[in-house]
Amino acid sequence: MSSEIKATHITWHEGSVTRDERAKLLKQKGCTLWFTGLSGSGKSTLAIALEQVLIQLGHAAYVLDGDNVRFGLNGGPKILMETRGYGEASAKRFGLGFSNEDRTENIRRIGEVTRLFAESGLITLASFVSPYRNDRDAVRAIHEKDKAGAIPFLEVHVCTDIEVCEQRDPKGLYKQARAAVVSGKGMGFTGVDDPYEAPANPEWSIDTGNKTTQEAVADLVSFLKQRGILA
Amino acid sequence: MSSEIKATHITWHEGSVTRDERAKLLKQKGCTLWFTGLSGSGKSTLAIALEQVLIQLGHAAYVLDGDNVRFGLNGGPKILMETRGYGEASAKRFGLGFSNEDRTENIRRIGEVTRLFAESGLITLASFVSPYRNDRDAVRAIHEKDKAGAIPFLEVHVCTDIEVCEQRDPKGLYKQARAAVVSGKGMGFTGVDDPYEAPANPEWSIDTGNKTTQEAVADLVSFLKQRGILA
Repeated sequence: MSSEIKATHITWHEGSVTRDERAKLLKQKGCTLWFTGLSGSGKSTLAIALEQVLIQLGHAAYVLDGDNVRFGLNGGPKILMETRGYGEASAKRFGLGFSNEDRTENIRRIGEVTRLFAESGLITLASFVSPYRNDRDAVRAIHEKDKAGAIPFLEVHVCTDIEVCEQRDPKGLYKQARAAVVSGKGMGFTGVDDPYEAPANPEWSIDTGNKTTQEAVADLVSFLKQRGILA
Repeated sequence: MSSEIKATHITWHEGSVTRDERAKLLKQKGCTLWFTGLSGSGKSTLAIALEQVLIQLGHAAYVLDGDNVRFGLNGGPKILMETRGYGEASAKRFGLGFSNEDRTENIRRIGEVTRLFAESGLITLASFVSPYRNDRDAVRAIHEKDKAGAIPFLEVHVCTDIEVCEQRDPKGLYKQARAAVVSGKGMGFTGVDDPYEAPANPEWSIDTGNKTTQEAVADLVSFLKQRGILA
């Protein structure tokens, strides 16, 4: 069977594949586009539309968002007990809730995973509210302080006004949060009773209140070309 | 700028890219090859060589192993404190050591990440001792019970005899483990004073004691073709 490989004249060197070899094969530079913004700002809509367009242009891309992370890697105690067979103590220790330390660990794990994806050569699209500057800066550091050299980390601030986000309210969360504040309990909801710390120097900003998805995606494709991510 | 996209006649549909669309673009089916076996059995050597060959054949592949996981996603308390700025309590809670529950969480997180990689369309090569059958079966379940349909999970047992592994002892760990047993302390080392539970029905088995890396990689490439992973 090894003759099949011999016939293609393949040789290999010691050690792992380099980033340059991957970039050459995939005709793109692995990177992370980190979409941050309020609930309802249009992060996931943009990320999912961009993923589709990139794939149609022949690029390998993947969206990480609450849908594929919250029920798996960063599941809460209940998910770990019910679907992963964890005992109560393990589930409480490793399962993530919504305290400050849990939110930080949530973004840290996602940051580590985006770094691995970006290193593998993919255009990685992360879509998370990620309201705290420190947490996002830590993810940037994970990318930029990589021992094999900086991995491109591009922060995209989806800066749609809160009034627009709240009017959209696709999951009814603003309504719930306002009611919780009125009732005196509060729910620590970003933009209502918990702060959103806007990026100071994002690599890109988009206000989906005055752009169509198609326009915003076209802008992002141009931006990726400018940055040398797409050949 | 949107004219660039219009010119390529790109349209998009609601929702995410399907697995079939990804497979068509990448000319491969996303999957996880899970290499399990004793320390020194040759798992990582095989995974790294296979990754290189796949990339030279034009396929997108990526190795996950201790090197890129232990210092990041699954770092211990010390790493979380020193390189991620965690306080002691958070570092102790989320950082992973070597107790049974920590080993299980280690493999669970890796399993969740391999599922995401496989879903993105990559040929994902995971190389971990992963000595417990329950932990590996849980990773298989994460792949096979995916709501969008089973993701191929291929268990590769690197079944090199322990005598051969111990003679190689590339990191001097068997020597340490034997000394620890003699001293009466022990160190819970797989194959010495902790069990290795061999897979009952692995999709593939390789004994690197009687095959060269080149032969073993050629066999694996044929196996991936047989399984319809490579076009």
